[in-house]
Amino acid sequence: MLFTRIDHVGVAVRNLADAIGWYETTYGLTVFHTEINEAQGVHEAMLRVGDAHADGTGSYVQLLEPLRPDSPVGKFLANRGEGVHHIGYGVVDVQEALASITSTGVRAIDERPRHGSMGAAIAFLHPKDTGGVLTELVQAAKIESGGH
Amino acid sequence: MLFTRIDHVGVAVRNLADAIGWYETTYGLTVFHTEINEAQGVHEAMLRVGDAHADGTGSYVQLLEPLRPDSPVGKFLANRGEGVHHIGYGVVDVQEALASITSTGVRAIDERPRHGSMGAAIAFLHPKDTGGVLTELVQAAKIESGGH
Repeated sequence: MLFTRIDHVGVAVRNLADAIGWYETTYGLTVFHTEINEAQGVHEAMLRVGDAHADGTGSYVQLLEPLRPDSPVGKFLANRGEGVHHIGYGVVDVQEALASITSTGVRAIDERPRHGSMGAAIAFLHPKDTGGVLTELVQAAKIESGGH
Repeated sequence: MLFTRIDHVGVAVRNLADAIGWYETTYGLTVFHTEINEAQGVHEAMLRVGDAHADGTGSYVQLLEPLRPDSPVGKFLANRGEGVHHIGYGVVDVQEALASITSTGVRAIDERPRHGSMGAAIAFLHPKDTGGVLTELVQAAKIESGGH
């Protein structure tokens, strides 16, 4: 299979600090990494779920607060409110995975991989071609570095 | 933390056989288990993502086709179309996790754990209290048995 893990569940939130506090208090998750991605228009936090996988990668809840209302996550919040925005699946090689998947007729939002969270190389697939699931392919950076 | 893994991503689909075929062809995932859950009104398939975790549990895409239009997944499809229906997080003890989470003020859909996929004990939390994410707590059965 192309997917090595469920890398993350991307969740749209109105206020990142509030959402982090809620996940910490309610579920006992802790922040592994935070980042501002100007290109995607998000301020985000990665909260680790469970232990590392055998290959050293992790699974995360990714909380996404939009930097501006006209960003993809800003529009999602306006249209649908808070909730699951996308699913990220781990792949060994994002370029190969993207080529394999698009060869079946699925359209990619990103024709070439771009910069994602924690130095990952990522690409999004079009939800109209993936059964309504906005899907991200995630090739983790060689060494994951976090805040703990 | 309460969560040991992202157990599964629950995806609402109109036709289970078609969806399984699509996930097999496009992503190379394979069916680990199928089940009809009359109480929940779904015909479902679990497709394994990646290798087993250290504790022997797995992570899955759970494809959900409603058995009837007035079931929760049937209503979801009518309202929002195909897409992510809920997220399941692994816990060691679902009763303890449920007690801990509801003690923070989050309402549970299931006050007591009930039967989930593959013999798991599960409970759903109310999405109005969880930032719009329909959230399932999953205590895996002692021994996971699948079709492969």
